[in-house]
Amino acid sequence: MEKQLFANCGINCAACPADQVTKEGGDLDAIQTAIDLVKSSKVAFLGSNGADGYPNIKAMLELATNGLETMYFSSNTSSRRVADLRANPKACLYYVDTDHFIGLMLVGEIEIVSEQATKDQLWRTGFERYYPLGKTDPDYSILKFTAKWGKLYNGGKYVKCFHIQA
Amino acid sequence: MEKQLFANCGINCAACPADQVTKEGGDLDAIQTAIDLVKSSKVAFLGSNGADGYPNIKAMLELATNGLETMYFSSNTSSRRVADLRANPKACLYYVDTDHFIGLMLVGEIEIVSEQATKDQLWRTGFERYYPLGKTDPDYSILKFTAKWGKLYNGGKYVKCFHIQA
Repeated sequence: MEKQLFANCGINCAACPADQVTKEGGDLDAIQTAIDLVKSSKVAFLGSNGADGYPNIKAMLELATNGLETMYFSSNTSSRRVADLRANPKACLYYVDTDHFIGLMLVGEIEIVSEQATKDQLWRTGFERYYPLGKTDPDYSILKFTAKWGKLYNGGKYVKCFHIQA
Repeated sequence: MEKQLFANCGINCAACPADQVTKEGGDLDAIQTAIDLVKSSKVAFLGSNGADGYPNIKAMLELATNGLETMYFSSNTSSRRVADLRANPKACLYYVDTDHFIGLMLVGEIEIVSEQATKDQLWRTGFERYYPLGKTDPDYSILKFTAKWGKLYNGGKYVKCFHIQA
């Protein structure tokens, strides 16, 4: 299904952190900036909820992306993070360009993908280091992130909020 | 009060994510690596809990640190993040050296510091951009993070877990 992106929803939007939404602009430049940042980033920071209620962060190597809507990562099935994400799929991703003070937070949910075709497609040379049994290693899991909304920061100040809807 | 750092607590530690604790080593090299990473990082990634239950991440400029125990940042008092942290002080910090694949997560709590002396001490040239009224701007808040435990990742694999206790 084609997804649509809505920028600058306005002050009274219920879905995004409306108190910080600026009124400036109405164009889609912010979304293009966000897409470019995701494309140029090798690493994304994944935020998840620990079982103890504390937020957790880890840097993840991005395997594939589709605009601002979906991102794929790999992780060890046996890891605590995968267990945490199974228990609570609420997550966020953060991308940053520290040279230009641009930051992007995407908020959404993580699904653990068990489909072998996806695992085959996203396998990378060198993954044997983490998953010794190869593409069918039961400890090789794919994390699929689906975004619901995002916030783009530019120059250390909040700029734009946008929604991602099916 | 002098704080103590304990590395390699072992597999059955209740406080840290014990399922991932490796048994290798017993020295404090991991803690020194972590301290060096914090010292050399200009930016830390702050994880917090949104009111909707989703984790949030934002890059923060670090104003001051004390080893692995306490870190200071500034934020706008009126921001949603400060409101979220007042409602739920559980937080984490993430530091990364992408050149060497070293990552550090510190888990702990955030306190909003209102003491003027601390605000004066941590004020930086250029902060007028964010807090136009200067050091006494009511919108100028200091966030003090106090760590409880940490995890150091090295080379993409988990390495060491340690506790930070008073």
